[in-house]
Amino acid sequence: MIRRLAVIGLGLLGGSVAKAARAREVAREIVAIGRDTSRLEPARRDGTVDRITTDIAAGVEGADVVVLGATVDAIERQLEIVARSVEADALVTDVGSTKSGIVGIAERLAAVRPFSFVGSHPMAGSEKNGYAVARADLFHGATVIVTPTDHTPPALVKGAGAFWEALGAGRVVHLDPRTHDRAVAAISHLPHVAAFALVDAVARFEPGAFDVAARGFKDTTRIAASDPEVWRTILLSNRPALLDSLATFREALDALERLIAASDAAGLDAAIARIKAQREALR
Amino acid sequence: MIRRLAVIGLGLLGGSVAKAARAREVAREIVAIGRDTSRLEPARRDGTVDRITTDIAAGVEGADVVVLGATVDAIERQLEIVARSVEADALVTDVGSTKSGIVGIAERLAAVRPFSFVGSHPMAGSEKNGYAVARADLFHGATVIVTPTDHTPPALVKGAGAFWEALGAGRVVHLDPRTHDRAVAAISHLPHVAAFALVDAVARFEPGAFDVAARGFKDTTRIAASDPEVWRTILLSNRPALLDSLATFREALDALERLIAASDAAGLDAAIARIKAQREALR
Repeated sequence: MIRRLAVIGLGLLGGSVAKAARAREVAREIVAIGRDTSRLEPARRDGTVDRITTDIAAGVEGADVVVLGATVDAIERQLEIVARSVEADALVTDVGSTKSGIVGIAERLAAVRPFSFVGSHPMAGSEKNGYAVARADLFHGATVIVTPTDHTPPALVKGAGAFWEALGAGRVVHLDPRTHDRAVAAISHLPHVAAFALVDAVARFEPGAFDVAARGFKDTTRIAASDPEVWRTILLSNRPALLDSLATFREALDALERLIAASDAAGLDAAIARIKAQREALR
Repeated sequence: MIRRLAVIGLGLLGGSVAKAARAREVAREIVAIGRDTSRLEPARRDGTVDRITTDIAAGVEGADVVVLGATVDAIERQLEIVARSVEADALVTDVGSTKSGIVGIAERLAAVRPFSFVGSHPMAGSEKNGYAVARADLFHGATVIVTPTDHTPPALVKGAGAFWEALGAGRVVHLDPRTHDRAVAAISHLPHVAAFALVDAVARFEPGAFDVAARGFKDTTRIAASDPEVWRTILLSNRPALLDSLATFREALDALERLIAASDAAGLDAAIARIKAQREALR
């Protein structure tokens, strides 16, 4: 049982951390921290959090677990205040979608004044954003990636995993921050860019086609309705890995286009069969 | 009420035409035609069709509606036999995913011996294939595109629309074959190629990433599990429009990549906001 849980940023992810912690009685007291009191008020009114504040230093004081729940660039800014305000043995983690930057900043800060940080990335989300869509069961059965480095104490990694499991996670996976960033570039950031480009291509090529779009197109481009601010931040925060994955995507696209241009039926069959098998292994 | 409905090819679409016609009592007698009797037998056993044959000429004889339900290249081959065997006033239509080739062949054949063809493309389907996944409600609420040309009698267009509505279609849209092919290139064939390339890119870039893929990736790449033979045929049958749409997709991708490479936050915000609005208009 956590005595005091502090959550910074009550959007979809931070809000869901608070709601899950309340619903599962994981924490006795929950403190929400944000820039704007009016955006925190709904969580106090509905009983999800006990206390709200706009002061990060005051909000994390005495907390035994602190979750940075905002966007990657906000987390990177907030870490400095957290690092000098939090108890040295409190578990500090986050929900940021890219990890090299956040983990690097946390380790530089910890070298000055030790505090107990390990990065997390719950693989749960939605194209919608904000506390209004936060859900107590968002992490239910989800995979959470925890991103220790060589400097992270094993007990801390274990503590973060136990925290996410207490919130309902189905599986906790450990990846170093760089591998994490390449992995999410491949299976999250690149697909967003591709979905954005698909919608844009239809609008440029044959806008009337939107009118006859069926389930396939809607599923493939659902994530193209994602929030601009959230996704601009994520894409730019993972720029090197994302640009690398885009180059690989182009190679894959070129290979398929060459088979189509050459009417290479056997080559196309083989390529689609190989890709189908890879995709089916995912289920 | 149709007296005799002949369906050539009992896969997902042809099978669903037969099942919907039986369930909704649209046709008194249903004849299934295919290359392989053993693959037609299940439909006779379960009462979906009354008669099966491998002989197209015999199967379409006396039918007042004929639906070509196979893949595009098979439909193009079968049309010649249908054209010389069918009653001149029987409604002949198809379910092929591309229309310029099929409609062109049908019009050349009709110039020699008149028969009543108009192309159709029900915008319903699945990444799965075969009679086993055919469903009586596959067309329920679906959009069906009917593709008349300047030579198609209006009564024929109306008859085809009424047929699809009788099978449950929610909406019948008319597009000329060329516009149809550009539209489906944009909202179906291009997204398949992009989904294939995405799965392939992950396998090339960071194969371990499949292990942490969440709902976003799964939705975006669901159609990458499509049947190789079906999709090779579709992609190659719509080669010119598909290659054009791929060029436009590349332009859209390039534009986004330039914004990311330049860390252009304002430009990326504007692009994502514009695309998000286009995608949301689809719902």
